[in-house]
Amino acid sequence: MSLLVVGSVAFDAIETPFGKTDKIIGGAATFISIASSLFSTKVKLVGVVGGDFPKADIQMLQTKGVDTEGLQIKENEKSFFWSGRYHNDMNSRDTLVTELNVLADFDPIIPASYQDVQFVMLGNLAPAIQRIVLERLDHKPKLVVMDTMNFWMDIALDDLKETLKLVDVLSINDEEARQLSGEYSLVKAAAVIKAMGPKTLIIKKGEHGALLFGNDGSEEKIFFAPALPLADVFDPTGAGDTFAGGFIGYLAAHNDTSFSSMRKAIIYGSALASFTVEAFGTERLQSLTKVELDARVGQFAELVKF
Amino acid sequence: MSLLVVGSVAFDAIETPFGKTDKIIGGAATFISIASSLFSTKVKLVGVVGGDFPKADIQMLQTKGVDTEGLQIKENEKSFFWSGRYHNDMNSRDTLVTELNVLADFDPIIPASYQDVQFVMLGNLAPAIQRIVLERLDHKPKLVVMDTMNFWMDIALDDLKETLKLVDVLSINDEEARQLSGEYSLVKAAAVIKAMGPKTLIIKKGEHGALLFGNDGSEEKIFFAPALPLADVFDPTGAGDTFAGGFIGYLAAHNDTSFSSMRKAIIYGSALASFTVEAFGTERLQSLTKVELDARVGQFAELVKF
Repeated sequence: MSLLVVGSVAFDAIETPFGKTDKIIGGAATFISIASSLFSTKVKLVGVVGGDFPKADIQMLQTKGVDTEGLQIKENEKSFFWSGRYHNDMNSRDTLVTELNVLADFDPIIPASYQDVQFVMLGNLAPAIQRIVLERLDHKPKLVVMDTMNFWMDIALDDLKETLKLVDVLSINDEEARQLSGEYSLVKAAAVIKAMGPKTLIIKKGEHGALLFGNDGSEEKIFFAPALPLADVFDPTGAGDTFAGGFIGYLAAHNDTSFSSMRKAIIYGSALASFTVEAFGTERLQSLTKVELDARVGQFAELVKF
Repeated sequence: MSLLVVGSVAFDAIETPFGKTDKIIGGAATFISIASSLFSTKVKLVGVVGGDFPKADIQMLQTKGVDTEGLQIKENEKSFFWSGRYHNDMNSRDTLVTELNVLADFDPIIPASYQDVQFVMLGNLAPAIQRIVLERLDHKPKLVVMDTMNFWMDIALDDLKETLKLVDVLSINDEEARQLSGEYSLVKAAAVIKAMGPKTLIIKKGEHGALLFGNDGSEEKIFFAPALPLADVFDPTGAGDTFAGGFIGYLAAHNDTSFSSMRKAIIYGSALASFTVEAFGTERLQSLTKVELDARVGQFAELVKF
């Protein structure tokens, strides 16, 4: 089934203990699109870049099978730019620069040819913009997955709660789940957040894996996906977006939103993220093959087998 | 096969956000013995208590099948006493009181009837005392598992390294693994620690589960056991010791130290620990049945199935 991906397409400049980059392509929708395109899913991208965005990178997305008709190019403006520096433990980072540029007044226009989408991935953006995307679809999609972050909980909580009512799956990290729910226990946090709208909640715990709270028929279920223990994390940028892209890409390709399908989808997302962190930005993801991905999913199976 | 358990048998007084206790029985060897006794393993306890230690609690251990011939009772002295207060997140705690009492000059005497043990669990104690226990056995056991903590890394690192050369499995938490190895990545930390002696390393991550680094024949293997997501953690005291007791209790009962057996043993240890935290001290563990335990192991299987 075809998949609508909405989010930032951007430049990142990254410093880690292992090195630093100039401006390289990044953005939530970029990672999501490349990750989901590995699953023979028709990926339809909505986003905005400036005239400074390399045509070669747009062609790279097209080569991956990503439809870029919905990627607006504002020739006289500049692309969204983020720069950050990771600390030695790679689990925390400082933001050095955030230039919204074209994203400041982003109007997410859905091309008519996108109106057949059945799966929607709302990458991290202002929750009001995420909601507009859903309002502009002429039908209710089969599954809407939303990513967000603590920033929007701080400055746009009411908007966030309005948008939450319209989504099926929310993907956030553990600290965000605690902030949004006011509960420390993730089990209690999940119950509070599910009552806000999303029937399914993914709580990402970084190097500690991810939890999926959902339902199998009328029965509440929890699934836990480990993170692969890695000797080196080279650059964590985009790992969460890659994870989300793998998750919805798998579901869309199999056209199956059951809890049992979501278990596998989470593992595919985790496996994809484990590749992303091996190199700067999208570098490793761009060269990744489905055969390599399937082999790594096998490592996850081996990791938890007992 | 029979199992030798060495460690503290003590009084604890615990404060959590849910309440507080007077002096209740605790100590590493107490949790380990009760946990391992669930596996029809002959548990032989070595430890020391004062005359203040309730005879009813010693009888409780005996009722569980624990041989207490090696539990020294120093009638005119006082038992080891620890008191602590947990913070609201239950992941950190302050030690309020530590009175070594009888533990200050503990001489671990091994009764002659214990010399048939094939499995040895060295609960957290001074590493020099742990080593003396091994030296006093007239044979090399089939498997020696050792628990320790950052305290000994701070004040008795050389002793700790000497003892490590004699053990097969070391069980520590993630921060301790980083401290002992000087490596942040747990994969790299495991490699450094395995070179110190133990062929197998368990890294406990609390609510984030546990990692097992070992070998299957000549092949290096990693196993990951999740922690069960819990709505409430009532009292974490003894969870790590319960985990260790379940681990070695399972291995001893099955007389199988293969990596595949250790995978199951870690899950049994995790399942046992998930009961311990449901009530103060050993309360829940004392009432636990094998049927309840097996059912919870089933929940672990369900949790990671994909």
